[in-house]
Amino acid sequence: MNNYADLIRAVPDFPKPGIQFKDITPLLQHPQGFQAAVNDLIAKVDGVEFDTIAAVDARGFLFGGALAYQMGKPLALIRKRGKLPYETVEAEYALEYGTAAVALHVDALSAGPRTLLVDDVIATGGTLRASAELIKILGGEIAAIAALIELTFLNGRALFENERVISLISY
Amino acid sequence: MNNYADLIRAVPDFPKPGIQFKDITPLLQHPQGFQAAVNDLIAKVDGVEFDTIAAVDARGFLFGGALAYQMGKPLALIRKRGKLPYETVEAEYALEYGTAAVALHVDALSAGPRTLLVDDVIATGGTLRASAELIKILGGEIAAIAALIELTFLNGRALFENERVISLISY
Repeated sequence: MNNYADLIRAVPDFPKPGIQFKDITPLLQHPQGFQAAVNDLIAKVDGVEFDTIAAVDARGFLFGGALAYQMGKPLALIRKRGKLPYETVEAEYALEYGTAAVALHVDALSAGPRTLLVDDVIATGGTLRASAELIKILGGEIAAIAALIELTFLNGRALFENERVISLISY
Repeated sequence: MNNYADLIRAVPDFPKPGIQFKDITPLLQHPQGFQAAVNDLIAKVDGVEFDTIAAVDARGFLFGGALAYQMGKPLALIRKRGKLPYETVEAEYALEYGTAAVALHVDALSAGPRTLLVDDVIATGGTLRASAELIKILGGEIAAIAALIELTFLNGRALFENERVISLISY
């Protein structure tokens, strides 16, 4: 299943008029497609030295869970403020109107500081930038940022000049 | 790693005073623990005939992603209303004050109707009950409900008299 990019569906006008949303659910429903995508992510991070996978809520959990399982790596969860039960650090990011915050448990990097940050899509990079801040607040470092999809016209990659950014499908 | 239940952390007074939250993040941070839990879920659903895994947002995605990857099964996403981009069906469930709704893409069961419903915790069962309704609205059936943890004192299992309910750790 090499052409799994064909399983990404463009949904017009979501979440608002004029936006064409990249819907990964047809890929997820295709077992060989999802396996191929996860295996490609694993192949692409080969050579990156990292201790911990940090997955971004919610679709990042799909890839983070599969990667952690298959690679035998510790998995940390980056969630919206208020969702994690234990003591956290927080970082804010800008929304179109106002701000939101992501959080990470203070002991999330106890297995090691070098972190592979995983999400499904790199868009404007705002959430990932705040997620990377959380890693750094805890004394960690970003070994790489890995995502299935990168929306290059939003240029999120520009926020990570000093980090390695890996994606499988670019639009 | 047989004693992965020891990696569940009880966090007092979350999400509100008097509640002891079962925090799975120490388990996720322990690679052999997470792998053992996923492998035990796979072993426990051995013999269940199902076509599709439906995972419940958000922590259900961690287990759903790993299961779908390892078992080679189609994965469908059950999310809060408004999060899925394509056409959906919805079902409401009761909160302490008011209601919320979960949603599922109308084509989520295109790979087959028999569904393994996956979440991290079975608590009151309200979200899982609504999730099961979504499957049935689409003409599907619940092959089994599988979760890492079951809070037996909340008796969520009573909502699923006709379904098989599988959990690895009971409190």
